[in-house]
Amino acid sequence: MTYRAPINDMLLALNHGAGLEAAVKAGHYGDFDADITAAVLEEAGKFAGDVLAPLNRIGDEHGIKLEGGKVTTAPGWPDAYQRWIAAGWNAVSGPEAFGGQGLPLAINAVCTEIWSASNIAFGLCPLLTLSAIEALDAHGSDALKKTYLEKLVSGEWTGTMQLTEPQAGSDVGALRTRAERAADGSYRIKGTKIFITYGDHDMTDNIVHFVLARLPDAPAGTKGISLFLIPKFLVNADGSLGARNDIYPSGVEHKLGIHASPTCTMTMGDKGGAVGYLIGEENRGMLCMFTMMNQARLAVGLEGVGIADRAYQQALAFAQERRQGHAFGSKGEGSDPIIVHPDIKRMLMQMRTLTAAARTICYATAVALDVSLRAKDVKVRADAAARGALLTPIAKAYSSDIGNEVAYLGVQIHGGMGFIEETGAAQHSRDARITSIYEGTNGIQSIDLVARKLAANNGASVFALLDELSGVVTQVERSNDPAFGTTGTKLREALGALDRTSKWLLKRVASKPNEALAGATPYLRLFGATLGGCMLAGEALAACEAGDGERYIAVARFFAENVSVQAPSLERTVTDGAEAVNGADAVLLA
Amino acid sequence: MTYRAPINDMLLALNHGAGLEAAVKAGHYGDFDADITAAVLEEAGKFAGDVLAPLNRIGDEHGIKLEGGKVTTAPGWPDAYQRWIAAGWNAVSGPEAFGGQGLPLAINAVCTEIWSASNIAFGLCPLLTLSAIEALDAHGSDALKKTYLEKLVSGEWTGTMQLTEPQAGSDVGALRTRAERAADGSYRIKGTKIFITYGDHDMTDNIVHFVLARLPDAPAGTKGISLFLIPKFLVNADGSLGARNDIYPSGVEHKLGIHASPTCTMTMGDKGGAVGYLIGEENRGMLCMFTMMNQARLAVGLEGVGIADRAYQQALAFAQERRQGHAFGSKGEGSDPIIVHPDIKRMLMQMRTLTAAARTICYATAVALDVSLRAKDVKVRADAAARGALLTPIAKAYSSDIGNEVAYLGVQIHGGMGFIEETGAAQHSRDARITSIYEGTNGIQSIDLVARKLAANNGASVFALLDELSGVVTQVERSNDPAFGTTGTKLREALGALDRTSKWLLKRVASKPNEALAGATPYLRLFGATLGGCMLAGEALAACEAGDGERYIAVARFFAENVSVQAPSLERTVTDGAEAVNGADAVLLA
Repeated sequence: MTYRAPINDMLLALNHGAGLEAAVKAGHYGDFDADITAAVLEEAGKFAGDVLAPLNRIGDEHGIKLEGGKVTTAPGWPDAYQRWIAAGWNAVSGPEAFGGQGLPLAINAVCTEIWSASNIAFGLCPLLTLSAIEALDAHGSDALKKTYLEKLVSGEWTGTMQLTEPQAGSDVGALRTRAERAADGSYRIKGTKIFITYGDHDMTDNIVHFVLARLPDAPAGTKGISLFLIPKFLVNADGSLGARNDIYPSGVEHKLGIHASPTCTMTMGDKGGAVGYLIGEENRGMLCMFTMMNQARLAVGLEGVGIADRAYQQALAFAQERRQGHAFGSKGEGSDPIIVHPDIKRMLMQMRTLTAAARTICYATAVALDVSLRAKDVKVRADAAARGALLTPIAKAYSSDIGNEVAYLGVQIHGGMGFIEETGAAQHSRDARITSIYEGTNGIQSIDLVARKLAANNGASVFALLDELSGVVTQVERSNDPAFGTTGTKLREALGALDRTSKWLLKRVASKPNEALAGATPYLRLFGATLGGCMLAGEALAACEAGDGERYIAVARFFAENVSVQAPSLERTVTDGAEAVNGADAVLLA
Repeated sequence: MTYRAPINDMLLALNHGAGLEAAVKAGHYGDFDADITAAVLEEAGKFAGDVLAPLNRIGDEHGIKLEGGKVTTAPGWPDAYQRWIAAGWNAVSGPEAFGGQGLPLAINAVCTEIWSASNIAFGLCPLLTLSAIEALDAHGSDALKKTYLEKLVSGEWTGTMQLTEPQAGSDVGALRTRAERAADGSYRIKGTKIFITYGDHDMTDNIVHFVLARLPDAPAGTKGISLFLIPKFLVNADGSLGARNDIYPSGVEHKLGIHASPTCTMTMGDKGGAVGYLIGEENRGMLCMFTMMNQARLAVGLEGVGIADRAYQQALAFAQERRQGHAFGSKGEGSDPIIVHPDIKRMLMQMRTLTAAARTICYATAVALDVSLRAKDVKVRADAAARGALLTPIAKAYSSDIGNEVAYLGVQIHGGMGFIEETGAAQHSRDARITSIYEGTNGIQSIDLVARKLAANNGASVFALLDELSGVVTQVERSNDPAFGTTGTKLREALGALDRTSKWLLKRVASKPNEALAGATPYLRLFGATLGGCMLAGEALAACEAGDGERYIAVARFFAENVSVQAPSLERTVTDGAEAVNGADAVLLA
């Protein structure tokens, strides 16, 4: 089945849960005309449903091919990519000076969810291009920008990000690819990179690679890494394509999911070295990388949201069609659709509400990043930057975990059919799996949350957020609406648990780091369960005011009573569990 | 990497956590010589490691082929199967009167874990044969037993179980395959079955199909179902093979996992009808099915345990080899193995302890089933039967859920490499996925637990078990061993939560079934987290007495502080969450 973007849910999440409406009213979005939001999203949903979604299964089945040093994508993909460019979707958030539409990240976030839901393997290509655009726009020379930026923004050329090497995954500083200075001011790069998304393909004439490498005299570790732009084809002064550069796909991976997205091993230097141009300063490559890390991580969180929603839509449709057994007490002829069974309802509500919570967390991250870039007031910008930095690891890890959980439940609802590839439910599950791993594993996100984001300002960003959330919970408590059930109680308890756990971690993060880090993953989980619950409650309150409260209250309530309710247990996992983790060697190394 | 059966862990779980030693001492195992257990398991582990494990990846890559109405298995599989028969592994628990070794189910349970860990797709074939043996032994005529049973026990022929049809999955009563009485007392069967494991293959000369079908005058629903034995090749009076019977594989599924296990669509009747022989009485086929359901469900739980252990072993080895980053505070040259990081330790301990808990729950189920069949005292047998019936849905659902969770973590520990199929971690995850679905989905197991097993005797089986578990926790509390950390507290709380939740459900299961069923899945989860925690604590106490306590205490502690700790939240999910589940229509059908 195809995919339909849930525009109403998205607008509620964006405007209320994520606070876009308030930020626009406060003037933090400058001259952005928020009235266009719905229209943009409607069009994005239409393109995704019409063009991208139908290619999702085809891409999974065909995968890609590497022959004669060239990667071929699945049937229909190059054509769809040309339609993508023509419709202007590549340029949504690109800089206006280079042909982009300059729309807020918040709008692009919703679009990223939509592309990922309809076809994550396709959506990855522009996602990587976007990171390349960011790096070039922020750190590139005017000459490089002039040659490359406009074509990357339009999508006429795509970009890649090349960090990983066999011995350098999470530990980027261990990379060995070498760069040598050439007489003309350019560089010659030699080395091998692995796991390069869309490292080669047949959808565009040129590909612009962004490669981390090390100069001969560079310091060890992350302080000796430089970033280079390496075009697949060199570009002549008049903008036409020149010679083939010495960077080739030498292998492609056979992966669990995202089969249609080529994951290449890239080899540079077999013919003397790839011609590369420095981005930013020598040995400052990691700085350029950090520039775009927030947005790339947020994008992966949105992939999780997108896949989750796709899996939910498919499971919901199946549960309404598939007939097995009877509702309890029903004596009618024939079977009932399985959606009548409470256990199926539970799974569907779990899927729906987890997805909704992850969505709002991601959109709120985008709004914070927007305000940090767009607001006039320095203090507002700084606060928003801190908020965005805090939310980013949660958006990435919590949402990608949820993408996996929801896709898992989607298979389960399909029963035996879910295990058959033809059904498509299993593909979502396979595709989702990488989102918890790439752009920094979710373990690394948790460590980032505890060791950097929580600790950065002695918890000030966290406690400021908790204060805001507490205000939402107070509104739920005061509403006295019985439809909320025990939502207020559960959220109040969750806030208390998160507050205490944050303080417990702050006491240890410097003095007993291994104790703090042992609890990093359950802490991030606790954060997501609390934050998501409060945000959904806030959305329900806003929906009530708009006269459409019933279902959004039901969503918020289910989440609070089934997910946020785990907060006290998660608190104790962090505060009572560190010793068992750090004493694990007696078991693991016995 | 290969698989090594963790014999010491298995023996501790079997003898102490699962209570085999006590049952043998009490005389409930008759003349079974428990001294042979270790030797049998050592040999099973050796066969699995040497013969089955190396074929696991080959089978996944090659899958199976259906050409010209015949299924071909992966290279090496027919040969391995012949070695399997020759070594006598097929006959471990088969009836002695027909050449079986008649070993207890508890021993066979450990073997099932071992086969599943080394190669689940291979192990499925004898698993299905075992179900066929059970049905035939319990309900078949002497003539049928004489012709078929010995060859099924030895494994010279394999068996299939054919229940499912497109419209009849969980709802078996909806099946339509027809059987007509023939003049010679046999039957002619026409119809189509789907999802038939090893419905055809090239490992043996003959296959004995056990097929559910409906007579023309049969009542509707499950009361009109009969069980038939349908051989692939008819068997002559002298035992030689005769004509090809009219039952053919007409399709094979392209599945997410267990690629090497053929999942066939079976068509009967294209050439006039398959010759079938009635097992038991007409219209009593479901009774025959129920006979073997407990063991089949337990076997699936053991598949979950096996895959979990395999995934753990692989992840542990990877974490000891793979070097990325430094331990906190370490300044040495080069990187440390990733096992130094607390977050990796947490994942490994999660894998290890979840697996251990699921293992003991499954073994305890097998011991209960053994005692229900072997004890002399009628009351002992009846109590054990009730215990076995109670534990079966938990063994099936909790262990298969854990199989999936552990395999998921196994991929996560491998990072990007985990997403590459070559690594093998992803295969465990794909293979595990079916265990939560087949032999009754885990949702159906949860409903069985609440609506039948808990409610059967107004909770008596549950409360008797809780009393026993409370005794174990008292021992932990009295031990005053600081190595247990907060194990005693966490388990005491979990027992309280399980007790209260059971009572809450009992009050509603008859009067408000939808409220009770809404909590079925979290209740089963709560049961597993409590039961598993107490059992691991019991094992730790036993290991202490044997002077090997340290690592088993660490296992019990981690589980209690990280898994059993969820009990209070799960209690509230059941008791506060039903309304949100049953009010879901406002969201799902909006």
